[in-house]
Amino acid sequence: MIIVLKKHTTREQIDGILELIKAQGLKPLYMPGTEKVVLGALGDERKLAGLQLENLPFVEKVVPILTPYKLASRDLYPTETVLTVGEEAVGTPNFTVIAGPCSVENEEQIMTTAEFVSSLGIKFLRGGAFKPRSSPYAFQGLGVEGLKLLAAASKQYQLNIVTEVMSPDEVEVVAQHAHILQIGARNMYNIRLLEAVGATQKPVLLKRGMSATIEDLLMSAEYVLDRGNRNVILCERGIRTFENAYRNTLDITAVPVLKQKTHLPVIVDPSHAAGYREFVVPLAKAALVSGADGIIVETHPDPAQALSDGRQSLYFKQLTTLMRQLRNLASIEGKILP
Amino acid sequence: MIIVLKKHTTREQIDGILELIKAQGLKPLYMPGTEKVVLGALGDERKLAGLQLENLPFVEKVVPILTPYKLASRDLYPTETVLTVGEEAVGTPNFTVIAGPCSVENEEQIMTTAEFVSSLGIKFLRGGAFKPRSSPYAFQGLGVEGLKLLAAASKQYQLNIVTEVMSPDEVEVVAQHAHILQIGARNMYNIRLLEAVGATQKPVLLKRGMSATIEDLLMSAEYVLDRGNRNVILCERGIRTFENAYRNTLDITAVPVLKQKTHLPVIVDPSHAAGYREFVVPLAKAALVSGADGIIVETHPDPAQALSDGRQSLYFKQLTTLMRQLRNLASIEGKILP
Amino acid sequence: MIIVLKKHTTREQIDGILELIKAQGLKPLYMPGTEKVVLGALGDERKLAGLQLENLPFVEKVVPILTPYKLASRDLYPTETVLTVGEEAVGTPNFTVIAGPCSVENEEQIMTTAEFVSSLGIKFLRGGAFKPRSSPYAFQGLGVEGLKLLAAASKQYQLNIVTEVMSPDEVEVVAQHAHILQIGARNMYNIRLLEAVGATQKPVLLKRGMSATIEDLLMSAEYVLDRGNRNVILCERGIRTFENAYRNTLDITAVPVLKQKTHLPVIVDPSHAAGYREFVVPLAKAALVSGADGIIVETHPDPAQALSDGRQSLYFKQLTTLMRQLRNLASIEGKILP
Amino acid sequence: MIIVLKKHTTREQIDGILELIKAQGLKPLYMPGTEKVVLGALGDERKLAGLQLENLPFVEKVVPILTPYKLASRDLYPTETVLTVGEEAVGTPNFTVIAGPCSVENEEQIMTTAEFVSSLGIKFLRGGAFKPRSSPYAFQGLGVEGLKLLAAASKQYQLNIVTEVMSPDEVEVVAQHAHILQIGARNMYNIRLLEAVGATQKPVLLKRGMSATIEDLLMSAEYVLDRGNRNVILCERGIRTFENAYRNTLDITAVPVLKQKTHLPVIVDPSHAAGYREFVVPLAKAALVSGADGIIVETHPDPAQALSDGRQSLYFKQLTTLMRQLRNLASIEGKILP
Repeated sequence: MIIVLKKHTTREQIDGILELIKAQGLKPLYMPGTEKVVLGALGDERKLAGLQLENLPFVEKVVPILTPYKLASRDLYPTETVLTVGEEAVGTPNFTVIAGPCSVENEEQIMTTAEFVSSLGIKFLRGGAFKPRSSPYAFQGLGVEGLKLLAAASKQYQLNIVTEVMSPDEVEVVAQHAHILQIGARNMYNIRLLEAVGATQKPVLLKRGMSATIEDLLMSAEYVLDRGNRNVILCERGIRTFENAYRNTLDITAVPVLKQKTHLPVIVDPSHAAGYREFVVPLAKAALVSGADGIIVETHPDPAQALSDGRQSLYFKQLTTLMRQLRNLASIEGKILP
Repeated sequence: MIIVLKKHTTREQIDGILELIKAQGLKPLYMPGTEKVVLGALGDERKLAGLQLENLPFVEKVVPILTPYKLASRDLYPTETVLTVGEEAVGTPNFTVIAGPCSVENEEQIMTTAEFVSSLGIKFLRGGAFKPRSSPYAFQGLGVEGLKLLAAASKQYQLNIVTEVMSPDEVEVVAQHAHILQIGARNMYNIRLLEAVGATQKPVLLKRGMSATIEDLLMSAEYVLDRGNRNVILCERGIRTFENAYRNTLDITAVPVLKQKTHLPVIVDPSHAAGYREFVVPLAKAALVSGADGIIVETHPDPAQALSDGRQSLYFKQLTTLMRQLRNLASIEGKILP
Repeated sequence: MIIVLKKHTTREQIDGILELIKAQGLKPLYMPGTEKVVLGALGDERKLAGLQLENLPFVEKVVPILTPYKLASRDLYPTETVLTVGEEAVGTPNFTVIAGPCSVENEEQIMTTAEFVSSLGIKFLRGGAFKPRSSPYAFQGLGVEGLKLLAAASKQYQLNIVTEVMSPDEVEVVAQHAHILQIGARNMYNIRLLEAVGATQKPVLLKRGMSATIEDLLMSAEYVLDRGNRNVILCERGIRTFENAYRNTLDITAVPVLKQKTHLPVIVDPSHAAGYREFVVPLAKAALVSGADGIIVETHPDPAQALSDGRQSLYFKQLTTLMRQLRNLASIEGKILP
Repeated sequence: MIIVLKKHTTREQIDGILELIKAQGLKPLYMPGTEKVVLGALGDERKLAGLQLENLPFVEKVVPILTPYKLASRDLYPTETVLTVGEEAVGTPNFTVIAGPCSVENEEQIMTTAEFVSSLGIKFLRGGAFKPRSSPYAFQGLGVEGLKLLAAASKQYQLNIVTEVMSPDEVEVVAQHAHILQIGARNMYNIRLLEAVGATQKPVLLKRGMSATIEDLLMSAEYVLDRGNRNVILCERGIRTFENAYRNTLDITAVPVLKQKTHLPVIVDPSHAAGYREFVVPLAKAALVSGADGIIVETHPDPAQALSDGRQSLYFKQLTTLMRQLRNLASIEGKILP
């Protein structure tokens, strides 16, 4: 940790900090410059974080050298995490495709979709039962009824279910029916929810918040990991910027950055990034070649009639084309796509 | 609602939409241009929102004319809302000052602060008992113990308590001890929490999310209002941008914009915007003259020792100065600051 | 064009606008709703833009239906533009690779680079002679001397030169030595410069500004096109967002969006987006599969000694690998990469 | 300067950097931590900036301790700069009001405005003669004819003229007619233009670019200062964010931040921030109380007929009210507003 002091800091104040550093078992360093005095602390500086040295009126800034997360860090855990979900492996070099409608709407819709995605060799079905919507007047999902429909589809077509959980008290019921618990972008900072899914051993698909930095996303993962659940999959799904020609700005660079910083699997949601189905296919392909471990993509038997997000849902024939293109790219890139 | 169609939309498709509009009891309009065909729907277009016309492959875009919120809208409810909290009125032309530490740390800290803010004529004490922190390794608050300390301070110094609630199952206990339930920026999109506080009649202080648009904030308020709780106070606290010379970019323009769009009281949190105490005073003053109905500001008996956010907490003497300056400005601006 | 009026607009004011619309040769439409009155104007609404109806105090907002650009629009010019530069074709389905150092530093550096990129089959050499730097104390480029070195490299290795022009009075000398005039991101809104390159017939590589919307980029292109120069190549190079784990956020979605909206070739600069060479290769590959018509990428014989942007410059062996990977992807994607 | 090395950096590589630091006359520091090795350089680290140590493959990051600007820095030049323009002083504690139309449109318009602003005690008239517009099809200003009209207004009403210069070759003619040369937000990164105005002794009003950080703005000022022109006024005018309820997000915090970092006068443009005249007055007042040294505000005799930016131009009577309110605030805040 590097501590930059303001001009005119007294020798006494400086010595005070050097003592604090020593008291934490770290090695202090004194670096008087011509314009500013700089101090250093060598060792596990996370011990100093609690002291909040930046509170001191004569401290100009504190520059951490180490990352604030540990369990999510590739520096400390260099081996890629590969999760087992049902009979499937998620994580490098597997390329996992999760497909399905935004919301579960009725039995026919979800069964038709399950049958279709299964016919393409896809092993994971997505579908929302509890839906966080911008408006209280919009369709809020079928709730537990939706979970049961998903479970039925899972049984009939041997699909693993990915569905969202919105509140700590819903974790139990969602975990009974689903194989992967999704934390939506709106809830990435919902700490009680992170703690609740962290207390299970269910795989967690953690979506990046709209304005979350890559470090924020890793800190949210750290909450889950710290509670004892090591089965976390990260998902880049677009961030909020000034551009409004589409829904969210897909941060494609986050993929190689995350693969460098963490051992956790990283997937991409091209549907919520694009917002318009005509841009979903190029983004899904970009995800694969940039190093992602999978995608989660929306499809619907009749997008024009979808109760939510129909504008970004692929037609079945588009999904067929996408799968063929992804398989071609996977073969070049050394990814396994069943 | 205006519906712009893509080139080459057929007459049949157009008639289909016109029928849909009519079926909702709205008046359809057909406007063929030279390059694009445009349709209109006259009446309460919120009825059409559920149809999601933008799902249709031949629809280029849909432009709503009305706001998606109703209960929060000044168009529909033109009279300013003034809440009664304890013996205090919150809302125009009152200027409400809420002050206190980021976190409740111990009895001495909170009692000292309560005594001091009370001595300045301030009627509202803030302090976090349940703390949402970026890191699982940071101080997470004293929990129920913290609530009890706040209640004791409230009793002794006749202060109204503002404190955060993080989860639906914490609403009851927080409501027992606090006068205003705070929804933090990280939870502005936490719909189950909005619903839970909406089911009470406690005043709710709803902070704007880091990347929430003004409309998003009003939609979150709508969730609370729609459940029957009309006691909502909005809080601008800075948004996330590319600038990193401070913590968040205070969106001062949001104040007059919100005052135009909604009848709800609007306050400003200059502390979380600034992130550094030296910028808090100018921002607090800017809040008052731009039309805000109050501020929520952090102060601490010894900021250098604060367990959280010490860098942005005012020294007591800074708060004294700020109150004097705010009173001067209030007298010019026609605001009531007791 | 749709014109939404404020409540309480008088019939007289409404009639005034309807007259204005008619006076421009457009067909006016009157749509009285229950809460707001909406007017429409059918025809080439660009004629109305000059009237700035939003100036009127009783106009709430104006929603244009048509794009503000014409010459850049695919709606009006549906055929893809393919430029001829030297003996090369730039534009779909060609995938153009432009490579070279950030700055021309000396003869050996540029000749070594030229020989190497030429050996990989690359036909375009980049290199800055006039360098816009953040700091007046940083290396500002070799100026005309740099242009001469580029011209010599061009001659010896049959490479087309891409180099930046920073000011109208430099256009002539740069045009003498270069095959493509680059407008840097910092100058995307520099209208006098756009007009100056628009007055030549040299191909122009127009980089998107750091905070330019896709529409802004197309409006800048429109300035060049409107002066009579139809040889414009657009370049996505990353936008400024809150994320700071890399240099700029590559807006990969801008590629399919631009390909939909305009007939002009679209290339990607993965180097300035990434800022770190380890992320350049995945981004370059993402560019190809998302539909871009090429890339402009930085390479240097000895990045550690580069006078500018060394951190994002590829080692030669990385460029070799990238070219092999791009050729594999191009063969799948139906792109021509010589 | 702090240099963080990657794991596994060799002792030889470390020694190489320590030598480089010494060779620049700086004092090197070696700080081996448990996870990373950190190096320090004590002295004027700007000497090291040119070496670009971050280019080295084993360097993880470089953290500068000093600011990259010198002449603009308050650390090095602690005394506030106060400029003399005509008979007026610009800079603390003066509060300078610059008012006028977006564009000079004709003699009557500019003379009427000049007479009016002069009658309010305002000493500075703004008005665009060379106008950078988003669209090549929009009104581009009257050019030299507009400058002459401004000069005539200046003479008749003893007003100092502020007007924009867009290109190096226009500096001479604009300088002949104007008292302050404005660099618009679109040209903040236009280095040739900064150099050109830096070569004069005319006061320069430098507007912050739409996505410029505060540091970027100061670096642009440094270009002007470095050429020998010390008469620079900085202007905050709103930055581009995701919010679209108004034109740009006024970064009010930039005011106290800039006043801390630089000795140059700082003014605010509430008109271009707001985009709508109803929000201009609260923002102008916020500017004053947050510590700004002035405002530049748009007004027009008939905003509804304005050829540009009419929607954000104040009616004369609004400006009258604003001036009265500013005078009241100035008296409290210790600002001089004639």
